[in-house]
Amino acid sequence: MTVKTRKEYIKSLKELKPNIYKFGKLIKDVTTNPATKRVVESHARLYEAAALPKYKDIFETKSHLTGKEIFRWNSLVESEKELIAETVMKRVNYHITGTCTGGVCVGWEAMNVMWAITYDIDKDLGTSYHQRLKKWILSAQDKGITIAGALTDAKGNRTLKASQQQNLDSNLRIVKVEEDGIIIRGAKVMIAGVAASNEIFILSGNKYGESDKDFAVSCVVPRDIKGLMIIEATHPNDLREHEEGFFVPDTGITQAYLYFDDVFVPNERVFMCKEYQYTGTEISSFTDNYRSCIGACVSGQGDVMIGAAVLVARANGIPSKAFKNEIIEMAINNETTYGMGIGAIALGKQHPSGAYFSDSLLAHVNKTLVATLPYETKRICQDIGGGIVETGCFPSFEDFTDHKLGPIIQKNFKAGDASAKTRAKAARLVEWLTLGAGVPGTMHGGGSPGGARMVVKSKIPIEEYVNYARDIMNIKEDVPEPKKVR
Amino acid sequence: MTVKTRKEYIKSLKELKPNIYKFGKLIKDVTTNPATKRVVESHARLYEAAALPKYKDIFETKSHLTGKEIFRWNSLVESEKELIAETVMKRVNYHITGTCTGGVCVGWEAMNVMWAITYDIDKDLGTSYHQRLKKWILSAQDKGITIAGALTDAKGNRTLKASQQQNLDSNLRIVKVEEDGIIIRGAKVMIAGVAASNEIFILSGNKYGESDKDFAVSCVVPRDIKGLMIIEATHPNDLREHEEGFFVPDTGITQAYLYFDDVFVPNERVFMCKEYQYTGTEISSFTDNYRSCIGACVSGQGDVMIGAAVLVARANGIPSKAFKNEIIEMAINNETTYGMGIGAIALGKQHPSGAYFSDSLLAHVNKTLVATLPYETKRICQDIGGGIVETGCFPSFEDFTDHKLGPIIQKNFKAGDASAKTRAKAARLVEWLTLGAGVPGTMHGGGSPGGARMVVKSKIPIEEYVNYARDIMNIKEDVPEPKKVR
Amino acid sequence: MTVKTRKEYIKSLKELKPNIYKFGKLIKDVTTNPATKRVVESHARLYEAAALPKYKDIFETKSHLTGKEIFRWNSLVESEKELIAETVMKRVNYHITGTCTGGVCVGWEAMNVMWAITYDIDKDLGTSYHQRLKKWILSAQDKGITIAGALTDAKGNRTLKASQQQNLDSNLRIVKVEEDGIIIRGAKVMIAGVAASNEIFILSGNKYGESDKDFAVSCVVPRDIKGLMIIEATHPNDLREHEEGFFVPDTGITQAYLYFDDVFVPNERVFMCKEYQYTGTEISSFTDNYRSCIGACVSGQGDVMIGAAVLVARANGIPSKAFKNEIIEMAINNETTYGMGIGAIALGKQHPSGAYFSDSLLAHVNKTLVATLPYETKRICQDIGGGIVETGCFPSFEDFTDHKLGPIIQKNFKAGDASAKTRAKAARLVEWLTLGAGVPGTMHGGGSPGGARMVVKSKIPIEEYVNYARDIMNIKEDVPEPKKVR
Amino acid sequence: MTVKTRKEYIKSLKELKPNIYKFGKLIKDVTTNPATKRVVESHARLYEAAALPKYKDIFETKSHLTGKEIFRWNSLVESEKELIAETVMKRVNYHITGTCTGGVCVGWEAMNVMWAITYDIDKDLGTSYHQRLKKWILSAQDKGITIAGALTDAKGNRTLKASQQQNLDSNLRIVKVEEDGIIIRGAKVMIAGVAASNEIFILSGNKYGESDKDFAVSCVVPRDIKGLMIIEATHPNDLREHEEGFFVPDTGITQAYLYFDDVFVPNERVFMCKEYQYTGTEISSFTDNYRSCIGACVSGQGDVMIGAAVLVARANGIPSKAFKNEIIEMAINNETTYGMGIGAIALGKQHPSGAYFSDSLLAHVNKTLVATLPYETKRICQDIGGGIVETGCFPSFEDFTDHKLGPIIQKNFKAGDASAKTRAKAARLVEWLTLGAGVPGTMHGGGSPGGARMVVKSKIPIEEYVNYARDIMNIKEDVPEPKKVR
Repeated sequence: MTVKTRKEYIKSLKELKPNIYKFGKLIKDVTTNPATKRVVESHARLYEAAALPKYKDIFETKSHLTGKEIFRWNSLVESEKELIAETVMKRVNYHITGTCTGGVCVGWEAMNVMWAITYDIDKDLGTSYHQRLKKWILSAQDKGITIAGALTDAKGNRTLKASQQQNLDSNLRIVKVEEDGIIIRGAKVMIAGVAASNEIFILSGNKYGESDKDFAVSCVVPRDIKGLMIIEATHPNDLREHEEGFFVPDTGITQAYLYFDDVFVPNERVFMCKEYQYTGTEISSFTDNYRSCIGACVSGQGDVMIGAAVLVARANGIPSKAFKNEIIEMAINNETTYGMGIGAIALGKQHPSGAYFSDSLLAHVNKTLVATLPYETKRICQDIGGGIVETGCFPSFEDFTDHKLGPIIQKNFKAGDASAKTRAKAARLVEWLTLGAGVPGTMHGGGSPGGARMVVKSKIPIEEYVNYARDIMNIKEDVPEPKKVR
Repeated sequence: MTVKTRKEYIKSLKELKPNIYKFGKLIKDVTTNPATKRVVESHARLYEAAALPKYKDIFETKSHLTGKEIFRWNSLVESEKELIAETVMKRVNYHITGTCTGGVCVGWEAMNVMWAITYDIDKDLGTSYHQRLKKWILSAQDKGITIAGALTDAKGNRTLKASQQQNLDSNLRIVKVEEDGIIIRGAKVMIAGVAASNEIFILSGNKYGESDKDFAVSCVVPRDIKGLMIIEATHPNDLREHEEGFFVPDTGITQAYLYFDDVFVPNERVFMCKEYQYTGTEISSFTDNYRSCIGACVSGQGDVMIGAAVLVARANGIPSKAFKNEIIEMAINNETTYGMGIGAIALGKQHPSGAYFSDSLLAHVNKTLVATLPYETKRICQDIGGGIVETGCFPSFEDFTDHKLGPIIQKNFKAGDASAKTRAKAARLVEWLTLGAGVPGTMHGGGSPGGARMVVKSKIPIEEYVNYARDIMNIKEDVPEPKKVR
Repeated sequence: MTVKTRKEYIKSLKELKPNIYKFGKLIKDVTTNPATKRVVESHARLYEAAALPKYKDIFETKSHLTGKEIFRWNSLVESEKELIAETVMKRVNYHITGTCTGGVCVGWEAMNVMWAITYDIDKDLGTSYHQRLKKWILSAQDKGITIAGALTDAKGNRTLKASQQQNLDSNLRIVKVEEDGIIIRGAKVMIAGVAASNEIFILSGNKYGESDKDFAVSCVVPRDIKGLMIIEATHPNDLREHEEGFFVPDTGITQAYLYFDDVFVPNERVFMCKEYQYTGTEISSFTDNYRSCIGACVSGQGDVMIGAAVLVARANGIPSKAFKNEIIEMAINNETTYGMGIGAIALGKQHPSGAYFSDSLLAHVNKTLVATLPYETKRICQDIGGGIVETGCFPSFEDFTDHKLGPIIQKNFKAGDASAKTRAKAARLVEWLTLGAGVPGTMHGGGSPGGARMVVKSKIPIEEYVNYARDIMNIKEDVPEPKKVR
Repeated sequence: MTVKTRKEYIKSLKELKPNIYKFGKLIKDVTTNPATKRVVESHARLYEAAALPKYKDIFETKSHLTGKEIFRWNSLVESEKELIAETVMKRVNYHITGTCTGGVCVGWEAMNVMWAITYDIDKDLGTSYHQRLKKWILSAQDKGITIAGALTDAKGNRTLKASQQQNLDSNLRIVKVEEDGIIIRGAKVMIAGVAASNEIFILSGNKYGESDKDFAVSCVVPRDIKGLMIIEATHPNDLREHEEGFFVPDTGITQAYLYFDDVFVPNERVFMCKEYQYTGTEISSFTDNYRSCIGACVSGQGDVMIGAAVLVARANGIPSKAFKNEIIEMAINNETTYGMGIGAIALGKQHPSGAYFSDSLLAHVNKTLVATLPYETKRICQDIGGGIVETGCFPSFEDFTDHKLGPIIQKNFKAGDASAKTRAKAARLVEWLTLGAGVPGTMHGGGSPGGARMVVKSKIPIEEYVNYARDIMNIKEDVPEPKKVR
């Protein structure tokens, strides 16, 4: 099987065994079911774009391993230039689809993180994970598959360790190590793009100590592996996707809950098996790159919001220059998260394995910006769009096209030169981007802003800064933290 | 007919003739149809609360006209104290329903505005609108009805006057004045709470000049008046309201598009008929009170957001004190819009008719705050809630209660002491408040923040401020605006 | 002695014995010394204004005690209307002087707080403080004096109680109670307007327990009382005030450090003597009113900043409409702190003594706004003003008027129609307001924003809000705070 | 003359002929006069640091022209890596001096810009500016001099072109071209670090058309060139620098007004002479690099503010963890402007001459951040520091050390373990950084944020964004800007 064209990609998904549910029903064909067909379409458009000269350099690159042309999302990222190319691709993904394309993101990041981690484990412990991973990567590059990434566990009680949970399935774990593979069990949650993926790359979801070593696991599994049950989460306005009509884009994103019920993974697909000492680095390496790149995601969607806001303003009969300041504000927000990501990348470093990682401090600062600025951008987008976009406040598609109601609505809904239909679609796009199925989970995706703030805190060299201040004022006396007396 | 209890209120709505559509279908009974039953329930709860000692003073007051106990939302508001009581009631409405209760808001404001405007018209022109209005108010107070208010027109092309529109129906107008009444025609849009109302109070939607005098109209009509077609707009996640289950509150809000197709309104219900000179004051009086009070609306919902955020944090297994700063920030936002509204009221003035109006500058400043701070509050609410609330990212009600999937989900969804069901409901509430059907249209409702900023601009006495500066620096020279030379 | 006119006021200050130091020197005459003459001028202008019909209602009112016309700053404030009049006066004070006039602020507030506190103490303990205070107030009203207020102690080590301090003088205390009076000792710091005041009203600076009862003291002393040493603090750019020239306004503000070295205060001027139980209410009553009114102070200065920004823009040759958005933003900031203060007042309550106090929650929310919004306003003011205002970056007065350098500077400094001198003065005013001697201490004055946030926290009824959320989602289960397990 | 050590640097400045004035007096020796000795000390510290192993790589690099070790501030910057090294150096400069060191900034930027511009002019017009510049650079590198940069003209009336000004001296211009050089005349203003510089590099201050070609000039002059009169501008609290004592740092910055009165510049120092066509690129190349790097300046000062805030908190007796959130906020602000600058550099490009320039869009977005975030950081710094820092509200150095007053002040000013002197110095540092002589002109330095916003606007590809939106919604219809009809 190769997955090199839209057609092959669609075919590859159709061949997977059904194991995804939504609204209480098993989805037979993810490429046609209204709950999943949009996320498939999003990814299909990337395969399509990769074939166009205009986008070739964005979506394709040369493999470090083979020298062959491969999809960028299957590549090892070994330099600042390549990581910037990744971040550019993520911005373009949003331009093309309007939303998140999780199947060419987290799995790819995970693969690169494990490229470094397996290198370290092997070096320290004499294992052979790195070669296993290399073999799998070669095959993934060769085929051109789409790979979701699963990091977040269900977690359970936040005040207890994984091994202390009443329900041990709250976190994915190795329940048995067999000669030819491992058996894993537990829940990974909120995993983006699963329905559009061929495989799922698994990482440990936390930094674990020895008592939690069973939870230190990394491997990759086919999406339809035996024992895996997938439940698609809801998202804003998702039921609209089940209606006919032209009020929702053909693209979209999904997030899934994964339940592994004693799933067997053969050794050649296992890249970490209880080496808990490496989970801390695994998590931090992942977040460093993920949080530098996510600035491009939200900026790409922000670009579309500028476009959508201008479109609806014009359809409302108002020239966009009336919103000059607002548009500049949106652009500043977009470029800030994007530019900060680029900055984090530029200050990054290459790992001995070849993998390249962003600067941790700037990446985590960017996460805090990603958790605030896009909300401002959405607000401004609704401000420009007017009452019809704020809460999706206009007639439904059924009413808009009803033989009796439709003509009345359309007659009264026309504001400027644009047709009522175009005005309606533009307004629906703003709704979709700011309150609807297009809203990606960028605030908590890959970890919460609160956690990022703690990382920032840990990286501020406070005593060094205090000494700058002392030196400038020529203060000789040592000034330690006061001790609480009473 | 009296509408004094939940039962009578429900009955009164059932008796209205069906003229409301959604999703291409005529709604037979607004009290049971899933598209409208929640907005009815919201208002029914107010009737219910009014009967409780705890809430009596909030929801009832004494009529200035008769001295009898009436619902506050049918009262004339003639003092600072009464307008503060109105703003308090609006905050409580949100506490009880979680969202907007438009049937006890805009119509009430409109009635009070017209109490002043009719007084002025009569005084100037010798008409008798004021007595007509008084008669209708007496009947409304006596019955205890719920009254939507219709202000916003479809508008059409923003660069043309109402009378210049290609489609004259873009703005509601008087097409004929007959001996015993008027015939009106055109579209009023985004009208909140219509499905839960007995009557609809109409105001002119703009300040009109003489050439647009046909558009200067105020009257009140039964919701089911002949010739009126009502189409309910969609709102975020509204299709969820059509499912069974416990993932959506029983309360809600609706906004409707109203098409008047040559509707006859008898004279006793007409309070302005082409007196265009008064439309400017009508609009500004309306926005002055509406925009001072709306701070209470968003603060009331903000209070519920604090509660919901704490609830979901606890259900996530995290003590709320971990979010102390975030909660303070939310509270500051809530109290700021509320306090500014109170400030605007405190600086208000009584009109010779008795009606009391807020200070215009502070009211419009408040509108700009209402268009920004609640967005911050929502963002913080999502920040505290974690990944499950950001995009409603968890299994659907059907999956959650499915006989096969449900037990697995619920087992893995439990995080702390609270049940999985409680955790799910808490998360759904945050979704509903920040991305779902609970989001009210407060940014553009009653006019856009851009317009409010222009009012603020017009009320800044810049030359006076310049003179303070000159006097403080003892600058004798006059410093006028530079003239552009080239 | 009466102090009813500018002339009498100046004379009254001249008659005080010198006890104020700055820059290592004793100030002989506060009305002429460059370190203090500007703060005297500020207050003198209020006496002057009070005599003008235009300002009469602002600065004068009728005494509740005598029915006679008195200065507003000597009055008991017994209603919402009067407290709003106080806040209006404070805004006007800034319009007239450009900065803080501390001699008609804290002492006045203190007097009103003690009007209530002495009422309570007497009622509970059978003392006669209230009558003593009344007598003093009658005399103050009769004379028309200016009264500073001293609240903040030097404090010492923040982790120790007052009585545990190594240096007991860190907080003002009663060292001896004698038959006809008390002897007080210790330091009060950062007291505004002392140099322009006739007397100083002292309050306890903290809520004290029994072990700290010696620190529970309230009294009023002449500024030149025996044993009191006053050191004027520096403030931004204050050395400019010692130069000749027209680059600094004639008005200004000062803040002083007060050292009481066993000062005897006769009983008739003592209003609290060790009744520590009342210090909590004393502090909170003070902050409730002070923090509602301070919104007017910063808005009044913000108004002057708008004027100054427009003035310098014009003098730079740029029409102010180029900064329309910036000016609206400044105005919104100004009106927000002002409006919130009015809101806090409107929700206030009258104490049985007659004294009127603002709503505590809104007042403390306002304090957090006062600690942020004016900084934004200053930033915008510098943005509009351009490079010459950002850091006061233009030639000194000496160079500007130098016989050789001056003509060259003035020739090249002219930008539009306004003279170089006017441009320079306008720029200097912005510097004075944003970086210079005009900057008042509103962030920490009367307590820090951090403390205000804690008050806000304490007043949020979190469980009530949680219950709104539970009721809306029909959650029956109780959801308490999680207990930390491990 | 070589200027390679602190000693040689000081000597080199002493040798310059006096032509700088402040407060109406000619400064004889900039290294000892209180008005200028601090800016000299700032730069001297960099010479000193460059000799330390710890800082060698920061302050020294290899010349592209000779391969020899030179000061970084004399180097050609030809790669991303080198421009990042420049930005790192700027952050370190602030760590060492607490403020701006303008003598190793603008002149250096100007030299690099002209490296590219002269390359272009020569290529197009066959001139030999590039070789001239190279020769001068070689000598500058060899000597190791400090070079101020002069860009901003006095401008005059903003609505007129340079050649239309009534006072032609408002903008620096070529009054005569002679065989062996040019004669220049006019005013350059607000030039940083002149008093600490050996030479001044001049750029055209605007994009000029043909009618203004006389104003298109670039050259470099010794600071004490005949005909140049320099007037030092004031800055916040600068008079404090004229006092003895330890309340002001030994470092500092100055900004000067330069008046060229028919100054002759020999040809070998002239790099542009009326080639107006290149002034646009000159300005934009300058701002691209200047505005990416300035993020490091404000972040470096922000680091010192964190240190100063922690220092004063501790000296106040409060552990810094009480301000954890505030410190994180400060750090986020610092890293955001720094990271954005790095991002702009990483997306930059090399010019055929070798010179490297930042990405224009990100650089100008950064300028808008530099004009806002540091103001927030200052506000937080004052919030943490308490009342004694907000307005520098504590006794003067004279009083603090007075034989009579001093002991009393110091006794009462001690709060925790730190001495009163340390507490005072820490507080004075915050004052200096936020309200005093340490405040650099970063908002308007190198152009105003308003201009930067216009550049951002011009670089947003709005129609491209509109097309993304149209494609996502499958809108075929063209939607142009509405035309205003009435």
